[in-house]
Amino acid sequence: MLAEALSRIGADVAATFDALLPVPGDARARLYEAIRYAALGGGKRLRPLLLVATAEMYGVDRAAALRAACAVEAVHCYSLIHDDLPCMDDDALRHAKPTLHLAYDEATAVLAGDALQAFAFEVLADPDHFGDPFVRAELVLVLARAAGPAGMVGGQALDIAAETSTFDLAQVTRLQQLKTGALLAAAVEMGAVLGHVQAEGRRHLRGYAHDIGLAFQIADDLLDHEGDEGRAGKALRKDAEAGKQTFVSLLGADRAREQARLLVDQAIAHLASHGAEADLLRAIARYIVERDH
Amino acid sequence: MLAEALSRIGADVAATFDALLPVPGDARARLYEAIRYAALGGGKRLRPLLLVATAEMYGVDRAAALRAACAVEAVHCYSLIHDDLPCMDDDALRHAKPTLHLAYDEATAVLAGDALQAFAFEVLADPDHFGDPFVRAELVLVLARAAGPAGMVGGQALDIAAETSTFDLAQVTRLQQLKTGALLAAAVEMGAVLGHVQAEGRRHLRGYAHDIGLAFQIADDLLDHEGDEGRAGKALRKDAEAGKQTFVSLLGADRAREQARLLVDQAIAHLASHGAEADLLRAIARYIVERDH
Repeated sequence: MLAEALSRIGADVAATFDALLPVPGDARARLYEAIRYAALGGGKRLRPLLLVATAEMYGVDRAAALRAACAVEAVHCYSLIHDDLPCMDDDALRHAKPTLHLAYDEATAVLAGDALQAFAFEVLADPDHFGDPFVRAELVLVLARAAGPAGMVGGQALDIAAETSTFDLAQVTRLQQLKTGALLAAAVEMGAVLGHVQAEGRRHLRGYAHDIGLAFQIADDLLDHEGDEGRAGKALRKDAEAGKQTFVSLLGADRAREQARLLVDQAIAHLASHGAEADLLRAIARYIVERDH
Repeated sequence: MLAEALSRIGADVAATFDALLPVPGDARARLYEAIRYAALGGGKRLRPLLLVATAEMYGVDRAAALRAACAVEAVHCYSLIHDDLPCMDDDALRHAKPTLHLAYDEATAVLAGDALQAFAFEVLADPDHFGDPFVRAELVLVLARAAGPAGMVGGQALDIAAETSTFDLAQVTRLQQLKTGALLAAAVEMGAVLGHVQAEGRRHLRGYAHDIGLAFQIADDLLDHEGDEGRAGKALRKDAEAGKQTFVSLLGADRAREQARLLVDQAIAHLASHGAEADLLRAIARYIVERDH
C-alpha cells in the first residue's frame, strides 16, 4: 500500500505543480524555470502524502487535496532553497542535483524561494481551488503559523543559535519540533481542515503528527550518522562536523532508534478511534523510521 | 491633512507591529529582534497609508485596517531586506541605518525576510483579526498575488534581466508595474476588501492605484537622478551606474516629470464618483510626485 502511495503522490504532485506553474512568455521565464527546477525536482513528498492521506480519510476530493499538498510542499521546497544558500548551509547537492543557487545563481535562488512562499498562499486562497472561504482562510492560517517565526523559520533560527551554544535534549527537541515538525503537523492538519474535522478530531491528528515529526527527525539524524551520501542525494554528517548536538549525539544511536520506535507506536495510538481508513497514516508512521533515505 | 495622516500612520504602524511581534524568551529572540529592526525601522509607510485611507472611506474600523496594513508593509519590508542582500543589490544603507545583513548577518537577514512574509499571511488569516472568513481569504489572495511571481517577485526577476539586456519603455513600465505597482495596488484593494466594496468600485480603485504606482516609480527615478543621498537614507544613482534603463533615462527628466503629473491627474479622475471622503487618497496621489525623499 505504501509503496504505491509514495509513487502515486510523487507523480500527482509533479503534475499539479506543472499545471499551477506554467512558464510565462516574458523575461520572468528564468525565475519560473528555477521555481520548477526546485518544485518539480523530486523529494519523498512526505508532506503532500500526509496531507492527501488525511484528507482521503474524510472523503475529500483528491484534486483539491493535491492543490493544498502543493502549497505545503512549496513552503518545504522554498525552505530547502534558502537553507542551501552559501550564507546558510552552503550545500552543493539536493535530490542528487546541483542546488538551485549553483544551477542558476544566488539572486535567482533567493527570489525563487520568496516566490514559492507567496505561491503557496496564493494557491490556498484561490476560490477556484477551494469553494468554502472558511476552509481557504483556515488552510492559510495553519500553513502560515507553521511556516513563520513561531514555526519553521523559528526552528531555523534556533538551528543557527545551536552552532554557537551547546543545546541539551529539550532544546534539540524544541528546535526540531519547530524546524521540521511544524510543517509535517501542518500537512496533517490541513488535510483535516479540508475534511471539515472538528476540534477533538484535529487534536488527535495533531498528536499523531507531533509524534511522527519527532520520529522523522530522529530517523534523519540516524541516517545522517550512518547513511550513504549517494543514496541520500545530499551531503551528510555536517552537524557532527559543525559540532552541533543531534538526537544521536545526545542519546547514542541505540537509544535514539528505540525512542523513534516508541514515538511511532505512540503516533499510531492517536489513531485508535479510526478503523481501516487510517491504515495509510499508520503505514506512513512506520515508514518514517524504516526508510533508508 | 496629509502631513498629519503621514505622521499618524507612522506611529500607528509601529505600534501595531510592536503588538503583533513580541520578542519570545528563547533563542529565537535574535530573529525577532532582526524582524523588528526591519519592520519598525521607519519608511514612509505609504502602503499602510493607502490601505487605511481606502478602508476609512468605507467606515472600516481603524484597528482592523492597521493589522491588514502591517501585513502589506511586512511584505514590503521583507522585499527590502532580501533586495539589500550582497547577492542582490548589495546595499549598506536603508532608512539611514545599516541594512539588516550588516546589522545582524546574512543568514539572519534571509530568515527575517522569510519570517516576515509568513507573518503577513498569518496576520491576515487570523479570525481574531478579521471576523469574516471571506474577507480573510480575499485579503490573502490579493496580497499573495501581488507579492508572488506574477507580482512583486516577478518584477524583481525582470529587474535582474534588465541588467543584461536593454529594456524599452514598455518593458520598464511592465517591470515597475510588477516590482512596485502590484503591492501599492494591493494595499488599495485590501482596503476595499475590508470595506466590502464590490467589483465595480474595486475596478475604479485599482485604476487609481495603477496610476499612482507608475507615478510613484517615475518620481523615484527622478529622485534617484536628482535627489540627495542623506535625505533619501540610501544609496542613489545605482541604476545609472549599472547601465539600467529608467523612466528618466528613456524619457528625459522633463518628460518624465510631465508624465508623472499626468498619471496623478488620471489617478484622481478615477475617484470622480467619490466626494470629500476620498480627499486623503487625492492628497496621497499629489504627494507621491511632490515628495523630496
